[in-house]
Amino acid sequence: MFTQISKLEVGRVRFAGMIDTVRDKKNIQFVVLRDFSGKIQLTIDKVQHPEVGEVFSHLLQGSTVIVEGELVKSEYVKMGGQEVLTDKVEVTSTAEAYPIDADSNIDQKIDYRWIDLRQERNLLLFKVQTLFTNAMREFLLDKEFIEIHSPKLIGTASESGSEVFQVKYFDTFAYLAQSPQFYKQMAMSGGFGRIFECGPVFRAEKSHSRKHATEFTGFDLEFSNIESFEDVMVLEEELLTYALKKVKEKYGEEIKSTFGVEVVVPTLPFPRIKLKDLYAELEKRYNYVCPKEEQDDLTTEAEKLCQKFSMEKYNHEFIFVTDYGARKRAFYHMRKDGVPQGYDLIWKGVEITTGAQREHRYDILKAQAEEKGLDKDVEFYLQFFKYGCPPHGGFGLGLDRITMNLLELQNLREAMFIFRGPERITP
Amino acid sequence: MFTQISKLEVGRVRFAGMIDTVRDKKNIQFVVLRDFSGKIQLTIDKVQHPEVGEVFSHLLQGSTVIVEGELVKSEYVKMGGQEVLTDKVEVTSTAEAYPIDADSNIDQKIDYRWIDLRQERNLLLFKVQTLFTNAMREFLLDKEFIEIHSPKLIGTASESGSEVFQVKYFDTFAYLAQSPQFYKQMAMSGGFGRIFECGPVFRAEKSHSRKHATEFTGFDLEFSNIESFEDVMVLEEELLTYALKKVKEKYGEEIKSTFGVEVVVPTLPFPRIKLKDLYAELEKRYNYVCPKEEQDDLTTEAEKLCQKFSMEKYNHEFIFVTDYGARKRAFYHMRKDGVPQGYDLIWKGVEITTGAQREHRYDILKAQAEEKGLDKDVEFYLQFFKYGCPPHGGFGLGLDRITMNLLELQNLREAMFIFRGPERITP
Repeated sequence: MFTQISKLEVGRVRFAGMIDTVRDKKNIQFVVLRDFSGKIQLTIDKVQHPEVGEVFSHLLQGSTVIVEGELVKSEYVKMGGQEVLTDKVEVTSTAEAYPIDADSNIDQKIDYRWIDLRQERNLLLFKVQTLFTNAMREFLLDKEFIEIHSPKLIGTASESGSEVFQVKYFDTFAYLAQSPQFYKQMAMSGGFGRIFECGPVFRAEKSHSRKHATEFTGFDLEFSNIESFEDVMVLEEELLTYALKKVKEKYGEEIKSTFGVEVVVPTLPFPRIKLKDLYAELEKRYNYVCPKEEQDDLTTEAEKLCQKFSMEKYNHEFIFVTDYGARKRAFYHMRKDGVPQGYDLIWKGVEITTGAQREHRYDILKAQAEEKGLDKDVEFYLQFFKYGCPPHGGFGLGLDRITMNLLELQNLREAMFIFRGPERITP
Repeated sequence: MFTQISKLEVGRVRFAGMIDTVRDKKNIQFVVLRDFSGKIQLTIDKVQHPEVGEVFSHLLQGSTVIVEGELVKSEYVKMGGQEVLTDKVEVTSTAEAYPIDADSNIDQKIDYRWIDLRQERNLLLFKVQTLFTNAMREFLLDKEFIEIHSPKLIGTASESGSEVFQVKYFDTFAYLAQSPQFYKQMAMSGGFGRIFECGPVFRAEKSHSRKHATEFTGFDLEFSNIESFEDVMVLEEELLTYALKKVKEKYGEEIKSTFGVEVVVPTLPFPRIKLKDLYAELEKRYNYVCPKEEQDDLTTEAEKLCQKFSMEKYNHEFIFVTDYGARKRAFYHMRKDGVPQGYDLIWKGVEITTGAQREHRYDILKAQAEEKGLDKDVEFYLQFFKYGCPPHGGFGLGLDRITMNLLELQNLREAMFIFRGPERITP
């Protein structure tokens, strides 16, 4: 394997890269070559090495080469203060002219996503997402969490009102899992104690909003022997703080210069507020009055106002909102005096998680499913609780939405390797 | 959250767990309580605490409780040399009698997988798989690999002859990805340089073998600027050695006592042999003669014989087999003088990976696709190579099959959180 560009050292070098730019002067050529790790300037003396100059003058951006030369320090070169005096080149692939550029619209960019990904901001985005995700894993593994891979093909369409994709499964049908929720809980019944999963989730929603996709990546966890959903909030705030700290340390500067965003490592604990008290604050501060029939849930407008409120009152980007009405919460959330034992976490005015203590007692869970008219659909799931199950809770994050929020992107599509929507299953 | 059992300390304790066994004597009760981290003995003095004894004598295995008492050292107790003199108990869930036990057949066990998972060997299995997977991630992250999440919903049924699942996608159809292959390569074209992905793959094969499933977890990687497929083999042997070393360090003893398997950390480099030479050796040593028409591929019988051969000749559990015939290899494998530039890795007589340098040059790739009659199906994929693409290669592992092989299980179904097969989409 060739040495990555960022690790090249002064002296004779042979390495590979993709052409970023070629500047052709009369007797000299400047080529910027890049790989995933960085960029470097090649300088070609066309008088001494006309055959090398000839090759580069016919190559378009995106073409790939192996080059040889002398890497020297050079104070005249802005790019890292070094250049490669290049005397050999071998072409490994030749590019056609790009059909898109940085100003193309998001749909055109997705049509040619493999070219669009070459933008440095996109490379940085996925490096940040990689670090964030693996920092979360690191945090959880240190607490002895077990990683599971739950099935995406499931036997019954279930869990929530949102639409589900149907799969032709030999002589019958299967469905694509809308979340690993039921299987995370199966692991709790199975005595796994603490688990996480990172994988695709599927939603057959015909939404064209800037925050929705039909397939995205979920990061979900669940753990047992909690005393209340407060334990779930504590784990989540510690987890996110740990991951954001790692991101800031490694990429804080680059994120600031590329996306214009200051990564803030939040302080602990995150503020917590009951939905009712939040509405009272929003009315007092911003004259926002929530319609009576929606007061058991957080409205979209209130969600947005959370950003202002949370910064003003707590100087904090995050806020846990608790004590929602039972009508709008999933049947498997535990209730206490009728109040669901869970929360939404709002970050910069966007809901990023729903978490809760789950109802682990068969009879009560069954009654709550019946109340929502779901008992037939979830019959297989109810069985998980017949042979004992410890008290437990958990939450799920959308990785793409987290990335979008972290980097303050306008559209979820920018944060996804490839977006999938109602009209988009290619490339 | 309650303290996990393995971290309890001498003194007054309050903690939670699931009942493993209850032994009821006249004046005393012994209860074994467990969680994901371990087991502990509760001792209940029924004379002093009749109300506690009363509770336990009615609880079946699997029921969950919160208990309080005095944790003391006790040389009479086999289990960790300690016991909890228990004076309070609160029941958090009550179990019905189990419908399966350790002797039930694999299908019955999967019907009640959440009970089956409670077996200590299953808990260990998933702890081992978690460590193995995350050791691989750690190794790759250290080399600056980027994690991607490629789409599982794709627009065209493609890549290989094996069957693909069709999904009703709004007014049209989509298909479930049989591997992330095309998208790993898209990332290479996108300049990501080094990527990995861990996620589900789907195969609509009506196979009932002990090694197949319709959905399983793939661990795939791809990286650029390689000089030949030797670079791919080197990365894979180092990766597996790193992960197996981590597994042996942490779980070697437990794996030996539970599964009777000695985890061997392989030596580097792994042996490499050309298919032709392998057949010559198998004939010489074991009188195995491969039918002429199958000599461009590794037969199932030869695959099995690899175990014996590799141990005998190299004292090694692993062996790379190279120089297959082009007929049986994917169209996207690079060829040199007609020979596919890739390999299979055989571990203990089971093929666990196919790896290769990929063909990254548009014209040649297109011709190879045409030769296999696939050019129409893979038209979208061919576009990835029109705008330049660095030389690259990679491989994929099945996590479940790796786990099966590592622990020498008889059936892949045992190594999966929940198995999915042609007749199995529940629970």
